[in-house]
Amino acid sequence: MSINLNQSGGNEASEGNTGRADKGATGASAVVVFFESHHLKVAVPSGITVLDAARRSGIHIETPCGGIGVCGKCKVRFTSNPPMPTEQERALLSDREIASGYRLACRSRIFSNASIIIPQELSHPTGYILTFGTAKMVSVEPLVRKRFVKVPIPSLNDERGDWERLVAALSESGSSEHSPDELNPDLELLRSLPRVLRDAQFEVTVVMAGKKMLAVERGDTTKMNYGLAFDIGTTTVVCYLVDLANGATLSTTSTINPQVAYGDDLISRIAFASESENGLKLLHEAIIGAVNELALKVCAEAAVSPSHVYHATFVGNTCMLHLLLGLDVTLLGRAPYVAVTQSLVELRASELGITAIPNAILHVLPRIGGFVGADTVAMIISHLLNGADVALAIDIGTNSEVVVKCGDEMLAASAAAGPAFEGARIKHGMRAANGAICSVKVDGNDLRCVVIGDAPAKGICGTGLIDAVAALLELGIIDETGRMVHRCELPSLPSRIADRLIERDGEVEFVLVHGDESEGGFPIVLTQRDIRQLQLAKGSIRAATETLLNLAGVSYDALQAVYICGAFGTFIPKRSAVRIGLIPPIPMERIYSVGNAAGTGAKLALINRNELKRAELVARSVRHIELGTNPLYAEAFFEWMRFPKNASSS
Amino acid sequence: MSINLNQSGGNEASEGNTGRADKGATGASAVVVFFESHHLKVAVPSGITVLDAARRSGIHIETPCGGIGVCGKCKVRFTSNPPMPTEQERALLSDREIASGYRLACRSRIFSNASIIIPQELSHPTGYILTFGTAKMVSVEPLVRKRFVKVPIPSLNDERGDWERLVAALSESGSSEHSPDELNPDLELLRSLPRVLRDAQFEVTVVMAGKKMLAVERGDTTKMNYGLAFDIGTTTVVCYLVDLANGATLSTTSTINPQVAYGDDLISRIAFASESENGLKLLHEAIIGAVNELALKVCAEAAVSPSHVYHATFVGNTCMLHLLLGLDVTLLGRAPYVAVTQSLVELRASELGITAIPNAILHVLPRIGGFVGADTVAMIISHLLNGADVALAIDIGTNSEVVVKCGDEMLAASAAAGPAFEGARIKHGMRAANGAICSVKVDGNDLRCVVIGDAPAKGICGTGLIDAVAALLELGIIDETGRMVHRCELPSLPSRIADRLIERDGEVEFVLVHGDESEGGFPIVLTQRDIRQLQLAKGSIRAATETLLNLAGVSYDALQAVYICGAFGTFIPKRSAVRIGLIPPIPMERIYSVGNAAGTGAKLALINRNELKRAELVARSVRHIELGTNPLYAEAFFEWMRFPKNASSS
Repeated sequence: MSINLNQSGGNEASEGNTGRADKGATGASAVVVFFESHHLKVAVPSGITVLDAARRSGIHIETPCGGIGVCGKCKVRFTSNPPMPTEQERALLSDREIASGYRLACRSRIFSNASIIIPQELSHPTGYILTFGTAKMVSVEPLVRKRFVKVPIPSLNDERGDWERLVAALSESGSSEHSPDELNPDLELLRSLPRVLRDAQFEVTVVMAGKKMLAVERGDTTKMNYGLAFDIGTTTVVCYLVDLANGATLSTTSTINPQVAYGDDLISRIAFASESENGLKLLHEAIIGAVNELALKVCAEAAVSPSHVYHATFVGNTCMLHLLLGLDVTLLGRAPYVAVTQSLVELRASELGITAIPNAILHVLPRIGGFVGADTVAMIISHLLNGADVALAIDIGTNSEVVVKCGDEMLAASAAAGPAFEGARIKHGMRAANGAICSVKVDGNDLRCVVIGDAPAKGICGTGLIDAVAALLELGIIDETGRMVHRCELPSLPSRIADRLIERDGEVEFVLVHGDESEGGFPIVLTQRDIRQLQLAKGSIRAATETLLNLAGVSYDALQAVYICGAFGTFIPKRSAVRIGLIPPIPMERIYSVGNAAGTGAKLALINRNELKRAELVARSVRHIELGTNPLYAEAFFEWMRFPKNASSS
Repeated sequence: MSINLNQSGGNEASEGNTGRADKGATGASAVVVFFESHHLKVAVPSGITVLDAARRSGIHIETPCGGIGVCGKCKVRFTSNPPMPTEQERALLSDREIASGYRLACRSRIFSNASIIIPQELSHPTGYILTFGTAKMVSVEPLVRKRFVKVPIPSLNDERGDWERLVAALSESGSSEHSPDELNPDLELLRSLPRVLRDAQFEVTVVMAGKKMLAVERGDTTKMNYGLAFDIGTTTVVCYLVDLANGATLSTTSTINPQVAYGDDLISRIAFASESENGLKLLHEAIIGAVNELALKVCAEAAVSPSHVYHATFVGNTCMLHLLLGLDVTLLGRAPYVAVTQSLVELRASELGITAIPNAILHVLPRIGGFVGADTVAMIISHLLNGADVALAIDIGTNSEVVVKCGDEMLAASAAAGPAFEGARIKHGMRAANGAICSVKVDGNDLRCVVIGDAPAKGICGTGLIDAVAALLELGIIDETGRMVHRCELPSLPSRIADRLIERDGEVEFVLVHGDESEGGFPIVLTQRDIRQLQLAKGSIRAATETLLNLAGVSYDALQAVYICGAFGTFIPKRSAVRIGLIPPIPMERIYSVGNAAGTGAKLALINRNELKRAELVARSVRHIELGTNPLYAEAFFEWMRFPKNASSS
């Protein structure tokens, strides 16, 4: 068996999956879906389910069974190019329905351009976005609004200035939102205004962000209103293009953070910025370059003009956002880890050198404290503010964040997990790309590895690593201290598995894929050192979790929900994650993989301007726990480096 | 007799006098006066009266006799370096007083550094500025405020970001003016903040302009808070340095508007901007260069660091301000003469390339309509808003503005007078500099010319021109059509005067200064063509005046006050101006020369932030009359090209 992430689509969160720097989620094989019922045309990756395609477009389809193809309620109708029905569809739909183009949204995959009708009773009205895993919905009320106005033509009886006549026309066009007095004209806009007005015979579209006028465009361009949400990760930068008219995500792309060249974790980047000549400048310019590149790419993929992008939101950890803004990070490198600012920063794209989207206003979302940044704020607004009263959210990344919610109180902490889950510092580690072992299961007398892209194995990615270690723990090949035992210590092991335990240079290694099945012709192995790296990573995250639960007085049983976030979190094998002790032993049904929650939060801030305010409130009210100096954490880290004896999850 | 403008000082308005581009008002020979009573040290030009030095410093001294040295009430005491007493002082003060350092403020001139005590009963409290000629006073409430704060030092118990701790300290320091939420941090400020805070051991001065934070400075710099007021004239650019702590004008400098190289009036500059490649850019860069140069010069003269200049206001006519902002002026060149904007424009110095004062916020004052610009708005807020109910204000310049106030209504118009009053297009015309004939009187059987700087005559300036023509009208040498008569037509003329009427190339000329008395050895003459130029200039201004009086239904008798504004207006010979018909025949005591009223208005906007709002109200409420298309104006222009038969002024 194999899975192809590019085709499975999975859910919204898969957009944020990494390792596809050269090929965005919409990829080379994008198809165009026309949702007739919603007058909405979107480009989506070939092979995506109708359910996911709709979700990306801001259309929520009710799925009583949770989208697993058993209730048969999510019936939609293809009016062109219906795909071959699946077995489940044949079972749940009548022949007549199938002949008429009816399919199940959760099962039916789109491989070519198609038109689809979604029955009204199935979908919320357009203008709502549903974030995956929880029920947060926001109405589409973007900060940026466009209005088409017919400006009175100057005459000897009307000698008002161009700006004044425009502002008056805007005011008369029915919006009481902006008082003309409050608008301060922008110099560049004034410089081009006379030409734009006259070229357009005084019929123009005005782009407003609150009280700021961002642009004046010829003719009626009200339908073209887009925003970009950026999630600036330590390792991966993800960019979403959002249609501000309906909240739909039109395309998504990602790239490796080019700062990786200067160090793969925060500490090494802070050192580089602080100690090298021009270090800060180099890191700043690297990320600005990536942002410009992603902006152009994501727009090109959806055939959107970058000049129609008026708003961009940025989330990321505190250090990443400092580097984005070109702020000194020296103080982040030593106690008491003081940021230059934790507040929401608003600025124009030109101020930051983001030349790809010259008309945009930017919001760098507020941070909480220490390294707990806007990504965590975004995760909180997208998943924790509503929903469960007592909850835990873990954003797994090179720098991992943990938040515990207990009623009105929230505690947050940041743990330096290191890049093990992203495949770094692991002997055959790699990112979740084609050729990566992403799943490992005991299958009868042997192990079975699933490789992304159905290709010969090249290495192992984070999910594979968790699965593999969980399997080896179950088999007793790894003991609770993390030691890999010698073959002779487990005489009852099936021989095919026992044969995988080898020794090299006096060290025990476990062969996941034999050399004759791997791409390079050499065996893909797990070493004792790899296990130690995983122990460090999961130990730091779990210790952070335990420290916060302890401080908040929350027991495992009290947790109503555990959200696993991060691009990596989407694919995490939950049971294995509990088995190795990365996640507390909670019943599986309370654990939700919510994908790139930070990216979702950044999108919410684009779609509804109130979310920006909410982000500020969150940043101010969440209590940051500094783990580096916390004795509880040190103790918990020591304890959780070990593996649990028995998985106690249900 | 001769006058030396550099020494006479005259009144506040003399600061704005032109023609001294190479030597500012404070000149090379500045002296420092310490007003002990007001804790105020200022640099002033050597030779200035104590009265003027005080006025420049924002200290008003009551002068019951009007400062002409007859009442003896303006007694001040020198505590160091008292100058030699004048004859009037010897007459009005006792020997004992003179020995104790008492002098009269209006008579005593300061030629070396000195300390002076101004008795409390003589002066208004500091913090008030009195504008010359009318009783407008404003309290010192500048937009820009500085506050010294001690910021809490970060610790493990206080891990707030630098910006957040600064804003909190500011908020706790007792100002309820700014809510921390309203402050959006500026990128450049954030980039330098960590260093500034730590260099200063967290004791800093915050510079606020309303809700904007302009700068954070090391230590306590609250005493250093300065602003610049710019009057951008078509021919001359004047810059005032104002101490925002007390409203005092510390120094003044001016330069020829370098755009003169591209045309000496508005129409030629608009043509250049519209038709030449890069024309707008060249004109824009020329004025920005002049602004930067003046800013540095005016600061150097008063030993003020340009980094302590936080606010700059700009007034000028609509075209000049468009060029300052780099806005398209093409539409100003043809009916219906539409501006790009008439509103108050706020921007940062860096946005406009004004690099000399990097920390400053700029306000380009609002315009009224057509060419009636911010200079007129500034003139109105400084002189017309309060005071007389029915009044006329005329700002004489290359482009002249006229305002008629009748109760709550105000009408304003702009007239293209041309540069005759500034000496251009006049055969021996020159600006009001050393060597210029500035006054011409009939003295017995001959004429007497006064030359600026007591030097041999080089030419004639605007005031001399008005005086000369008035004298020739009285003598009958010029008739009411402007024709210069031949010598034979006036047989009864005294021979010394008659000898001055000569003929050259068939044209009559009048010799003002004979060749043996002039600097160049050639006679300084007035030609028939010069008279025509004057007729055009004064005709257009008077026609504008008549048109507005007509439209407002205001008779000469109803006028309670006539304000003659503009640098040139300060020295205007009022009686001669009435004689030639430039000013309506109003009793002399109702005519006030108020100097550079536009500059005064620009200064008011620095000193009191409410004046900025008032300027916006004025710009919106004053009715602009477009003269170019007004038949009343055309008729009046034809009529007022002629000279009045008999001066009917009292």
